[in-house]
Amino acid sequence: MTAPIRPGLGALGLPSADLGVVLAGELTADAVVLGLPFDAGVPGVPGQRHGPEIFRKLSPTHGWSVAEDGALGGVIDPVTRGPVLSGRRVFDVGDLGSVPIDPRIGRGTYYKTLTRLSEQLAGAGTIPVFIGGDHSLSAPAATGAAAVHGPLRFLCFDAHCDFSARPMPDATDITHADFLGHLFQTGTISDAELYGVRTYLPADCGPLPEALRCAYPYEPEASATDRYDRPTYLSIDLDVIEPADFPATGHPEAGGYRLRELLAAVEHVCRTRRVVAVDIVEALQDDGENRATSATVSALVMTCLRALLEHPRERETTE
Amino acid sequence: MTAPIRPGLGALGLPSADLGVVLAGELTADAVVLGLPFDAGVPGVPGQRHGPEIFRKLSPTHGWSVAEDGALGGVIDPVTRGPVLSGRRVFDVGDLGSVPIDPRIGRGTYYKTLTRLSEQLAGAGTIPVFIGGDHSLSAPAATGAAAVHGPLRFLCFDAHCDFSARPMPDATDITHADFLGHLFQTGTISDAELYGVRTYLPADCGPLPEALRCAYPYEPEASATDRYDRPTYLSIDLDVIEPADFPATGHPEAGGYRLRELLAAVEHVCRTRRVVAVDIVEALQDDGENRATSATVSALVMTCLRALLEHPRERETTE
Amino acid sequence: MTAPIRPGLGALGLPSADLGVVLAGELTADAVVLGLPFDAGVPGVPGQRHGPEIFRKLSPTHGWSVAEDGALGGVIDPVTRGPVLSGRRVFDVGDLGSVPIDPRIGRGTYYKTLTRLSEQLAGAGTIPVFIGGDHSLSAPAATGAAAVHGPLRFLCFDAHCDFSARPMPDATDITHADFLGHLFQTGTISDAELYGVRTYLPADCGPLPEALRCAYPYEPEASATDRYDRPTYLSIDLDVIEPADFPATGHPEAGGYRLRELLAAVEHVCRTRRVVAVDIVEALQDDGENRATSATVSALVMTCLRALLEHPRERETTE
Amino acid sequence: MTAPIRPGLGALGLPSADLGVVLAGELTADAVVLGLPFDAGVPGVPGQRHGPEIFRKLSPTHGWSVAEDGALGGVIDPVTRGPVLSGRRVFDVGDLGSVPIDPRIGRGTYYKTLTRLSEQLAGAGTIPVFIGGDHSLSAPAATGAAAVHGPLRFLCFDAHCDFSARPMPDATDITHADFLGHLFQTGTISDAELYGVRTYLPADCGPLPEALRCAYPYEPEASATDRYDRPTYLSIDLDVIEPADFPATGHPEAGGYRLRELLAAVEHVCRTRRVVAVDIVEALQDDGENRATSATVSALVMTCLRALLEHPRERETTE
Amino acid sequence: MTAPIRPGLGALGLPSADLGVVLAGELTADAVVLGLPFDAGVPGVPGQRHGPEIFRKLSPTHGWSVAEDGALGGVIDPVTRGPVLSGRRVFDVGDLGSVPIDPRIGRGTYYKTLTRLSEQLAGAGTIPVFIGGDHSLSAPAATGAAAVHGPLRFLCFDAHCDFSARPMPDATDITHADFLGHLFQTGTISDAELYGVRTYLPADCGPLPEALRCAYPYEPEASATDRYDRPTYLSIDLDVIEPADFPATGHPEAGGYRLRELLAAVEHVCRTRRVVAVDIVEALQDDGENRATSATVSALVMTCLRALLEHPRERETTE
Amino acid sequence: MTAPIRPGLGALGLPSADLGVVLAGELTADAVVLGLPFDAGVPGVPGQRHGPEIFRKLSPTHGWSVAEDGALGGVIDPVTRGPVLSGRRVFDVGDLGSVPIDPRIGRGTYYKTLTRLSEQLAGAGTIPVFIGGDHSLSAPAATGAAAVHGPLRFLCFDAHCDFSARPMPDATDITHADFLGHLFQTGTISDAELYGVRTYLPADCGPLPEALRCAYPYEPEASATDRYDRPTYLSIDLDVIEPADFPATGHPEAGGYRLRELLAAVEHVCRTRRVVAVDIVEALQDDGENRATSATVSALVMTCLRALLEHPRERETTE
Repeated sequence: MTAPIRPGLGALGLPSADLGVVLAGELTADAVVLGLPFDAGVPGVPGQRHGPEIFRKLSPTHGWSVAEDGALGGVIDPVTRGPVLSGRRVFDVGDLGSVPIDPRIGRGTYYKTLTRLSEQLAGAGTIPVFIGGDHSLSAPAATGAAAVHGPLRFLCFDAHCDFSARPMPDATDITHADFLGHLFQTGTISDAELYGVRTYLPADCGPLPEALRCAYPYEPEASATDRYDRPTYLSIDLDVIEPADFPATGHPEAGGYRLRELLAAVEHVCRTRRVVAVDIVEALQDDGENRATSATVSALVMTCLRALLEHPRERETTE
Repeated sequence: MTAPIRPGLGALGLPSADLGVVLAGELTADAVVLGLPFDAGVPGVPGQRHGPEIFRKLSPTHGWSVAEDGALGGVIDPVTRGPVLSGRRVFDVGDLGSVPIDPRIGRGTYYKTLTRLSEQLAGAGTIPVFIGGDHSLSAPAATGAAAVHGPLRFLCFDAHCDFSARPMPDATDITHADFLGHLFQTGTISDAELYGVRTYLPADCGPLPEALRCAYPYEPEASATDRYDRPTYLSIDLDVIEPADFPATGHPEAGGYRLRELLAAVEHVCRTRRVVAVDIVEALQDDGENRATSATVSALVMTCLRALLEHPRERETTE
Repeated sequence: MTAPIRPGLGALGLPSADLGVVLAGELTADAVVLGLPFDAGVPGVPGQRHGPEIFRKLSPTHGWSVAEDGALGGVIDPVTRGPVLSGRRVFDVGDLGSVPIDPRIGRGTYYKTLTRLSEQLAGAGTIPVFIGGDHSLSAPAATGAAAVHGPLRFLCFDAHCDFSARPMPDATDITHADFLGHLFQTGTISDAELYGVRTYLPADCGPLPEALRCAYPYEPEASATDRYDRPTYLSIDLDVIEPADFPATGHPEAGGYRLRELLAAVEHVCRTRRVVAVDIVEALQDDGENRATSATVSALVMTCLRALLEHPRERETTE
Repeated sequence: MTAPIRPGLGALGLPSADLGVVLAGELTADAVVLGLPFDAGVPGVPGQRHGPEIFRKLSPTHGWSVAEDGALGGVIDPVTRGPVLSGRRVFDVGDLGSVPIDPRIGRGTYYKTLTRLSEQLAGAGTIPVFIGGDHSLSAPAATGAAAVHGPLRFLCFDAHCDFSARPMPDATDITHADFLGHLFQTGTISDAELYGVRTYLPADCGPLPEALRCAYPYEPEASATDRYDRPTYLSIDLDVIEPADFPATGHPEAGGYRLRELLAAVEHVCRTRRVVAVDIVEALQDDGENRATSATVSALVMTCLRALLEHPRERETTE
Repeated sequence: MTAPIRPGLGALGLPSADLGVVLAGELTADAVVLGLPFDAGVPGVPGQRHGPEIFRKLSPTHGWSVAEDGALGGVIDPVTRGPVLSGRRVFDVGDLGSVPIDPRIGRGTYYKTLTRLSEQLAGAGTIPVFIGGDHSLSAPAATGAAAVHGPLRFLCFDAHCDFSARPMPDATDITHADFLGHLFQTGTISDAELYGVRTYLPADCGPLPEALRCAYPYEPEASATDRYDRPTYLSIDLDVIEPADFPATGHPEAGGYRLRELLAAVEHVCRTRRVVAVDIVEALQDDGENRATSATVSALVMTCLRALLEHPRERETTE
Repeated sequence: MTAPIRPGLGALGLPSADLGVVLAGELTADAVVLGLPFDAGVPGVPGQRHGPEIFRKLSPTHGWSVAEDGALGGVIDPVTRGPVLSGRRVFDVGDLGSVPIDPRIGRGTYYKTLTRLSEQLAGAGTIPVFIGGDHSLSAPAATGAAAVHGPLRFLCFDAHCDFSARPMPDATDITHADFLGHLFQTGTISDAELYGVRTYLPADCGPLPEALRCAYPYEPEASATDRYDRPTYLSIDLDVIEPADFPATGHPEAGGYRLRELLAAVEHVCRTRRVVAVDIVEALQDDGENRATSATVSALVMTCLRALLEHPRERETTE
């Protein structure tokens, strides 16, 4: 029996499918889009729980055709004149939990469930694109991926350096502003590259690990020679973008990337690194900006999917 | 030794003082303003934690003089030509907790602390004006007041009827949308009057208690004859106001009160009922509206304080 | 075979159904909601074509239960403690045409189709609630209703007096600013009452018919004695509302109704007149205001439906 | 030779004419509209200098016909079916000074020029409608009118009581927040009625004169019996309006009038008092609100002109 | 007799003149600015008809001197220290039609009139700068120019590839989203270069012509060698700009040009190609953004005029 | 006795100190931040007086430690891993005057006081960072600095060329749009470099001095060879930024710098020129943008301070 695929009902007009079906192996997916409506990792400005809902409700529909096995078709790029994601299988598998949030589900439970899910998807060779939600979600998502791939490189676009050296052995010890400490302490990540950083840290955050490198510009040619053979977790905190261009985030910082710069950098990362999972986090509910928020997330998702799935050979070669 | 009073440093230019000093009886207060930066009772749109910060940062300063014992003076009302709050002692006693929120403090702990505080203030004969925060805070605040005054009448301005009959024995079972069920089930309140209600309930919310009355208009003359002898908790959910006039709330409903209508109704309640505590809840962070939010909360606080404290005799007489 | 009803998929969470099924008599409806995405009657500021889309996409879902025959249930009003629209059959039957608009369909064709539809619904005893679209749509919609009910009274809330005495025998001669001339000239309406009017007319618009009465306030008690026995077309131009409260319209005029005043007036009309059709027109696309637009239209639709359908006996009696 | 009248080139589509021609008596005017682009009386939030420019640039054009002598015609009110300002002669006479402001012209000079102008217009029996500009302009404008009419009643709609008892013998001693002290001290006004007041004064403002009465609501029936025989200066500070409805002002105060309430009150004043001059002040430049600002000022100007000029007999009778 | 030139009354403070006078050859013009208030080519979000009105009402005035023959002077560029457009004759010749739109004029008629006008201007050697209006207007405007110059190159800045291969022999078959199909099918254009493209096409749009090239960046040095000898139609769809910088357009797409990038590209095109006509299209009415809209259009118009008219020799040489 | 330093109470969390203490030499400062709440140099859109208030109220707090002598510490930059401003002494010394502005203080007095202050700070070797206020303030500030350093180079980022050759011997002859004429005429500046210029001048502004150079881009490598040995006044008019990114200014011009470009240019200037004073001017009060305004000013102040104070050796060498 064919697994149930619902053409056109997902974000971006992608086919939607049940996450369980994918996890059970009844449906093979090259990538899935999974919403994480959660913001309990935020001590400051919350509302990130609405990210998936805004993305889905207002994303453009690209008019895909969908084959019986879920393979996409029917869309062309006028710049290349070629097909877009043709033959790839990408599903919107819904959200982990929902808004309104069930008050009976604790933070620890949510993080654990996400860790397990992320591990299962990694085991199945499916690249997840997580739509947050707050940045603390990167911790459980990366932990799950590392259980399959081993210690990861964490490549992140972010206005802030989300680090503290204080002990945080458990996922519930973290916030969206310091979770990198947890990932280093648990050995989940071996190193981290942060781009777009433009804020300061209090000196009492403790010593920054050698393996944590911060920069403002992403410079394609300046990468280390070993970069291609490392499993990499790509995390995009939307506050890396200039607040004038993307105001709907909780902790905006003057002087960020233009979306176009970010798209180019993200595309380069996805083409040249061994990216095993992606998250896009920290969009807020803001009535006046919801359409722009969805457009920005949509552009990032499409850029990641195309760079990751349309050129698999190039990526294997470079590894 | 005189208790430390800091003239001009509180919201509205009121003197600020430490809550501990008031609770210890070292400083006698007719009323206190206490911020509750908390929104963990919200499954939908959060951000109410910023209410106290917005109120304080942008409230107007009325230029009070402050006597050694904290008695206010120095401000007149050009309409009455008389002094404002003259001789009354009102302090801004800061916030219960802070933003960023400490992730280690659980919901139950916060509610319990607030219950105890509310009880202590009631015991000292001080009227608290709580600045929320989300509406679930009314539950612990009323519970503390009822421990001193006995079962309360709950008089509330709200677009919604925050009720469910499902069992919710513990404060952590509630949300900001159904806490009235808890208050009835625990006997904290004997009855409730809700004004401004303009939304529906699912039929499966269970039977509404007889003692829960909902209406849209507040009609001064239509009150029951026993109204003056009941200790009353006044709760103002800012979403009772028309969204065009007060957009910075999480669940706006078309067709609400004008602020002026609300001020008149609140003044009437404070002059004719035995109000023992007040809360003003559900304002959201919204950069474009923060000044208006503070102005609205400020007008409500001043109206409550004047109606409660400038006419004590009238209130006693009517009782 | 039961006619296909799709619970929960319409605006306001109403069941959706195909218009054809209703017209064919396979599904009996007390009322239907029909979108009219059309603005070719507007020489000035267009964009009214998006009205139905905005209303549907962002309207609240009331959680109805739907019986096999489409009868509604499951929702209560906390003010009355009674059920809402219980046992009534109301369907969202979609839009007449779609956006993007098909450029091959001319104005005349659209008006003719709407006239025919309106006549068929009137013949079936179903009250249509049309969601515009621009105000010129009242002309064909009323024409269709008059074909069944005879000459109508046109009761309208509007900032403008949409009249000109110049000859306009054909529907394509009208604009949204003068269509009343056409309705008088064709005998479709016998008289008109306009409320909320607050603009001037050029003297060369020609003589106003005696039967066209304009006023700002709607005064329930001042109605003519014959009012109950006349079939009445109720038209709500959203620019009757104060622009500060409803900015998303093309020709806003300072000094309008509050939504609450409008809801009360509309409710009175629907309870005391023999309303045979309703339209709500002139909402514009405006990213920052779409949610408010939908909330306002939703409140008007619910008020009309409840006043028309929950009290049929009262209406018959008063007639 | 006929004085030069330029039909349609003034605000509201009124004819424009040169102020000098009116002052020289070559053109008889029932009323004139005169802009006052000036805000040097503001110590806080400036920008009122742009009021006249905004009003003129965006006011609606009513399509008047203009006779050779400037008499208006061609516009009807659909509510009354009657003509609007028919036969009256009203001219837009431009601005006193311009924006950009000439830095060489001092405050004292501006005030003196306005005083003289106001006196000349009063002498000619022309009612001026001044479009500010900041509220301090009421001082020289009233001083000029009082030179002809004797001590005036000052009837004002304002959120604030603009009074201080400190000595301010010269016009340059005043600000827009205390100019009433100057008017009382110089005997320019005999008494003052302020409506819409909702803020406090510092006690050290000095004693309020007995003849200065403040209230929030304007109650038509509560006026003194001598009201009709007193020459009255009508001043409308736009901050009397609710900030949600009229945000473009420098010192907004929560809880104001709706525009509709203000229009009704202003109309009553103009019909029942002997109004000799009008000002409308304190609108600010604000890109997003300029259209609304102009619409509000336009509605006020039309209401004043109609109430003052269409019913002269009624006014004389009541005196 | 000198042709009537009205100094200072056009957009940008340019002299205005009647279009008829220019077409009749009574006034020689190097370039004209012509508004096209028309949006009937838009099936989606309309309102482009207000583009010319917004541009004119709010454009800056540059303080030109105007000689008897219309030659400009009096303005210098502080960067070059040289005069701006000195000696050039540029007129604002008003709009083709007006808003409110006359409902009796059909689409076909408007397109035909524009085609004829464009041909006449091309015949007279005058470069038209058309201010739209919607993008479908490029079709008749280019058709008119091609009647004089022969098949054109269509160089366009646009977020979208406005193409479909379905047959569209008549101008009324097109929309603003597919008109390039018509221009290729009729032979009006020989090839097209589109820059800024960042959206997809449905595969069933048919095969893209070889001569239609899409790209995101405009790279000056990458042009074909034959570029200078081809008559070129330059079309600027304002949605090529990043929506955060230019939100007032109907179909915004995330990730566009900055205005500065666009100005540089447009200047390069105008200096190096044989541009025979220009259009600037797809600005929408949006109260909050009108000033920015006018500023953007103004900057584009000035850049085009200077690059086209100040360096004729350079352009001739490169041809 | 130690001079009174108030840790954490200044803008950016800097220590605050009294200006008098610094001027008296009791407190040695490497740099001071001084607010200039003044806008009487503006004939057009005023409101710049609120710049310092907005900057201070909403600037981020960086959590400095402050040694007894005021030396800063406790903050690290994650990009460099090094300390920020460590050991430097920077104080917020408050504002020169206040808002509301005292109407008794004339323009001339304010300018003179600022001139004297600027001279005293220059004499003490303290670099002032002035936060405006309007651009005319550059004139007295530069005049004071030149009294110590001799004729200055004026390096300015600005959308406009603020020049006129008309005689303006006195500071009160200037406006914010032409003050450079005054500075050249008085010999205060020997030459000027303006970057970001994108507007025109009327030809009758008179001849531009040879020593006044305008350009749009700032090109680091293109500087004159003598640039390092000249005392330089750095002036940043915030309208140099693209209005979409920084709308809160009075005379926005389409097509400006991104903040990031400006930060890079400003950093280069501060590292390579002998900057003796800095001003940042022309921010306006605008409720919706105040947070962004403060963030932008904060980023500029931090960039200047770090570039000027962290690399003194580099700067000396290059001289």
